[in-house]
Amino acid sequence: MIGIFAANPFLTAILVSSLVGIVVAFWLAASVLGRPEGEKEMRNISQAIRTGANAYLKRQFTTIAPILAILAAFLYFTSPNPILAWGRAGAFLMGAFFSGLIGTVGMNLATRANVRVTEAAKSSFGSALSLAFKAGATTGMLTVGLGLLGATLIYWIYRESATEVLVGFGFGGSLLALFMRVGGGIYTKAADVGADLVGKIEKEIPEDDPRNAAVVADQVGDNVGDCAGMAADLFESYEVTLVAALILGGVTFGLPGVLFPLAVRALGVGTSILGILTVNARGKTEIREGMNAIIRSFALSAVVSIIGFFVLAGAIAGDMRLAVATTIGIVLSVAIFLLTEYTTGGHKPVKDITKQSQTGPATVILSGLVSGFSSTVWAILAIGATILASFLLFPDPLTAAYGVALAGMGMLTTTGLIVSMDSFGPIADNAQGIAELSGIKGKALSVLPKLDSIGNTTKATTKGFAIASAVVAAVSLFESYLSDAGLAGINIAYPAVFVGFLIGGAVPFLFSSLTIKAVSDCAYAVIKEVRRQFKEMPGIMKGSEKPDYARVVDLTTKSALSALAAPALVAIIVPLLVGFLLKAEALGGFLAGTILTGQLLAVLMVNTGGAWDNAKKMIEDGLYGGKGTEPHKATVVGDTVGDPLKDTAGPAINPLLKVMNLVALLAVPLMVATQTLTLTHWILIAAGSLILIYSLTKSYH
Amino acid sequence: MIGIFAANPFLTAILVSSLVGIVVAFWLAASVLGRPEGEKEMRNISQAIRTGANAYLKRQFTTIAPILAILAAFLYFTSPNPILAWGRAGAFLMGAFFSGLIGTVGMNLATRANVRVTEAAKSSFGSALSLAFKAGATTGMLTVGLGLLGATLIYWIYRESATEVLVGFGFGGSLLALFMRVGGGIYTKAADVGADLVGKIEKEIPEDDPRNAAVVADQVGDNVGDCAGMAADLFESYEVTLVAALILGGVTFGLPGVLFPLAVRALGVGTSILGILTVNARGKTEIREGMNAIIRSFALSAVVSIIGFFVLAGAIAGDMRLAVATTIGIVLSVAIFLLTEYTTGGHKPVKDITKQSQTGPATVILSGLVSGFSSTVWAILAIGATILASFLLFPDPLTAAYGVALAGMGMLTTTGLIVSMDSFGPIADNAQGIAELSGIKGKALSVLPKLDSIGNTTKATTKGFAIASAVVAAVSLFESYLSDAGLAGINIAYPAVFVGFLIGGAVPFLFSSLTIKAVSDCAYAVIKEVRRQFKEMPGIMKGSEKPDYARVVDLTTKSALSALAAPALVAIIVPLLVGFLLKAEALGGFLAGTILTGQLLAVLMVNTGGAWDNAKKMIEDGLYGGKGTEPHKATVVGDTVGDPLKDTAGPAINPLLKVMNLVALLAVPLMVATQTLTLTHWILIAAGSLILIYSLTKSYH
Repeated sequence: MIGIFAANPFLTAILVSSLVGIVVAFWLAASVLGRPEGEKEMRNISQAIRTGANAYLKRQFTTIAPILAILAAFLYFTSPNPILAWGRAGAFLMGAFFSGLIGTVGMNLATRANVRVTEAAKSSFGSALSLAFKAGATTGMLTVGLGLLGATLIYWIYRESATEVLVGFGFGGSLLALFMRVGGGIYTKAADVGADLVGKIEKEIPEDDPRNAAVVADQVGDNVGDCAGMAADLFESYEVTLVAALILGGVTFGLPGVLFPLAVRALGVGTSILGILTVNARGKTEIREGMNAIIRSFALSAVVSIIGFFVLAGAIAGDMRLAVATTIGIVLSVAIFLLTEYTTGGHKPVKDITKQSQTGPATVILSGLVSGFSSTVWAILAIGATILASFLLFPDPLTAAYGVALAGMGMLTTTGLIVSMDSFGPIADNAQGIAELSGIKGKALSVLPKLDSIGNTTKATTKGFAIASAVVAAVSLFESYLSDAGLAGINIAYPAVFVGFLIGGAVPFLFSSLTIKAVSDCAYAVIKEVRRQFKEMPGIMKGSEKPDYARVVDLTTKSALSALAAPALVAIIVPLLVGFLLKAEALGGFLAGTILTGQLLAVLMVNTGGAWDNAKKMIEDGLYGGKGTEPHKATVVGDTVGDPLKDTAGPAINPLLKVMNLVALLAVPLMVATQTLTLTHWILIAAGSLILIYSLTKSYH
Repeated sequence: MIGIFAANPFLTAILVSSLVGIVVAFWLAASVLGRPEGEKEMRNISQAIRTGANAYLKRQFTTIAPILAILAAFLYFTSPNPILAWGRAGAFLMGAFFSGLIGTVGMNLATRANVRVTEAAKSSFGSALSLAFKAGATTGMLTVGLGLLGATLIYWIYRESATEVLVGFGFGGSLLALFMRVGGGIYTKAADVGADLVGKIEKEIPEDDPRNAAVVADQVGDNVGDCAGMAADLFESYEVTLVAALILGGVTFGLPGVLFPLAVRALGVGTSILGILTVNARGKTEIREGMNAIIRSFALSAVVSIIGFFVLAGAIAGDMRLAVATTIGIVLSVAIFLLTEYTTGGHKPVKDITKQSQTGPATVILSGLVSGFSSTVWAILAIGATILASFLLFPDPLTAAYGVALAGMGMLTTTGLIVSMDSFGPIADNAQGIAELSGIKGKALSVLPKLDSIGNTTKATTKGFAIASAVVAAVSLFESYLSDAGLAGINIAYPAVFVGFLIGGAVPFLFSSLTIKAVSDCAYAVIKEVRRQFKEMPGIMKGSEKPDYARVVDLTTKSALSALAAPALVAIIVPLLVGFLLKAEALGGFLAGTILTGQLLAVLMVNTGGAWDNAKKMIEDGLYGGKGTEPHKATVVGDTVGDPLKDTAGPAINPLLKVMNLVALLAVPLMVATQTLTLTHWILIAAGSLILIYSLTKSYH
């Protein structure tokens, strides 16, 4: 507990900046909540969405609370030093709590902001855009503020042993992110697919029609999946790259290596605020102009950040290479934005898909796979180039690992803005849904679809960013693992390591199988319920009776949460089994395999899904005959296939990679201490395997 | 040239057994050709298929001859010793020649056997089955006979330096396999998809209707893809595991370590003959009985092989662990057969897909992906278990690598039978096609569809076998690379190695993108031509005019071959660039990454495609309303998506893995010798990159 109250102007400044971030978040929230809510009908719908979303989060937290308690107790035993042990367990709970708090507050605000955006859209595009963006920015600023606050407090208390406690903090955030991403992802797509299959296809009623019992669940899903899930995911990467940078920075550069990352995070709070406040669409009702306003702010924030990196590197370390490393991260994020935009936007790959829609759904699927497969290559080359650049900068391998962590830090400097851009999506989507459900007329009906379209683009591009940052974070953790495990290297040619590597590579495939299956099963339950309501309550179709929205919301919640067990157990138990049975070096091979296939699969699923989605939209905008034609139907098939890939299975790989790396990092002291396995170990290993096998077979019932 | 004529009873016995294999092949061929060919109409169709298939192979060999010449010259420079240099270049050409010879002779016989099988089916199921199997067995026996002959001759001539020459032999076979697999795979699916889209969907005429101009090309495709392509692929694995076993056996066990693999191959010739001669369907016209006859022979051949392994291990090395290692390979092949059968046969995964067909094509695609993703996990665990078992058997890593190579040897002991089973497929398919095209009546029409159905099953299961054996072969080569490069290990945590590893993992994704795209483009050309013929020759539809089959055959040939360049260049140039730019250890990481994602992707594509195919067949057999219903249409979409995945992109990964490993093995002395890159190196690297980029952009025109 050394130095807990010691005066330290540097740390004080960082602490203050984290508090500034949090204050700005609440100021933004207050300014959003001060806006008018519109008519009663609109408020009622917004209320129903909020109730459903809160019910989901509440049940989710109740479900996972016992798991968190068990893991906190387990973490206590991963450190022989009682002070560190308490710290680690406490930091774990704090990480989980912060992550949950960001999700809850951000989502709550989003579900209050949606109706206000609908109302604002009645007057102008510019005011609706800036309101939606401000609401999203609340989540963004909370993410950066709380992330920095937690890390700084831990560092202030523990100093040189802070990293051992920080791993617990990162793990808490990661685990919650896993639950939020996977559970929210399953929820959102099950409700979406369920609503569409019965509503649009069987009953031939439009999207967001109030007669569809799943329509509120669909809106709830946008919030729990895109808003809470994504915020938790980015909070996790934000946290975890900082943890890795502190671990590796301490080993390679001493104190300056630790202070620089903290200062970069504080800088990021400032540049994020700058970016958020400068989003200004100049009042025009144009999609292009709205998008440009966001891009301009991002560019401004990035440029100021880069200048700041050099100032800080000079002041703290006197070594400009640190600034170059963080700048590489910004370059990587721009490269990833461009790649995602090229693959999923209205360029050649999507045009090729629309062309193939003339020969039916099979050729739509195949051409999507062609561009999806090739996009993975570019994404991995961008990440490879980042690692190589760090290596050229710092020829010593361990220092190069620090360089990679710094690139991750640089990439995530703009987290505040990125989260804002992403949360903007579900808010705009909900605002549009509320307008349709409440049947309002006038200007808002022409403004909101444009806002929604911008939201779709920002959601798609931030997904690519989230994957790349997760991979960089995982690579940094992987290098920290090596340093913590005291391994000289990971010799992939050694048989046990190679086997660990093969198993690691298979995990993202298993995980994807589980998450896609969960969406199907859960969607099937939604379909059955919506069909039942249409059948047993004939007044619904005539409009004389209201469907029971809450029942669908409740059912989707239960079924999404029950599908969580198998993927979560895979993420925690498999690395432990590999580590104890095949030893620490094989676990290193395992992690490398996971990072490789996880990155490739996530990019494949997210980009292919995004491209199919946009191909459908291009046809709906009139290409090849527009809505209702055979080409349109073919692209609807592509979009339906892509939905669970791009919104559930693909993004769920991000927390998977980080959680598995953190489990390894936390368990490695135990593995190193355990040279031979005793009977107790074998009993635990057998129990773990049985739990895993049971939950896997159950999920394939 | 020591000992070229030295008397050596052991090597003489092995040489004789390889010659016995070749003699049996010709004896089988003669007995097939002695059977009656049937009516003139049948003979004409068979002739057209044969002409088309030969034209394809001829043009293929003409196209690749200059490439072979250039590479032979290049190989000459990979060895500083002129005797070895000549040997390596010569062995390379011999490997390519043998592989080509097997494809040409086997395919020629298949195209002569098809019509005889149609004729035999007029009298009984049993005689048609055994005739088709004998014709397939010709290719099988040629594969094992020529493979063993080449390796034994090289060993006889070069003795202790034989492995350096054998690598050239393996590379020749591999490279030809790459061309045959990829070119044949593109050809067969482009013709198939093209014929179906215009014939079945646009013109609503049945499959194999003589009015469809692409129908002969479709039959030709079965031969060049399934028959010649698969034989070359297995010849390559057969060759390459032997090369790896000889390299690693010499290092770890000395002479016995080299003689044992050779003896196992000779044993395999004998047990393959035994298996082939005991296939006897007992005259009944039942699918189950026909399949059982094949399984019984396989089991007999496997059991005798295992007994033989122990006898040989005792006699040659006095170490029974060698026999256990080869037996593990047989166990692995049985495990892979069962897994493939479970995923693609009429079990739960395929039933799930048929159930999802009631909600349309999107859910068919998704449920196929669910089972495909999870099947990759089991397949990789089976391979991991093989490696671990070898490691438990031989705790020293290098010896464990020899154990893995021996497992591959054991697995491929039954190559003769496996190739027979696979070649049986296109022969039965063609026999059925000839019956439909020639309009014959009677018993044959009920016998041939059953034969075709058995052929589909054997084709599907041998695909899983081909992947697993390719992966084991690649792992063995990877370990040989390590030993040849003089590396102590491959430290995946080292930045340059990690980047090599990322790039390696991306290659199978790039490759799949290229091959799927090639099928689409080539199918599009076929569609345009068939449409043109229907339009400009109105007599075709009425049956008064014959379509120009040859034109479609020719066009498919040209377009399949032009699509070959990009994937082939990727396989050769990318490992060279990684090796020279990032050095030998990074190339090791590259190879590991490729093996991992290659295995996963190949199993995913082959199993998912096979499952969609069988789901469609189950519905066609009457489930959920049968042909023409909405569920049927949904599964047709699944099948069309699966076709290029399971028959082109998936299997093409097998030779890719082996070729890249062999390129590494051949180039490693140059890399080790090149510590710093001179101007010449940079010019070569730039030229290689430019050629690669040019061919990639051209293929995405």
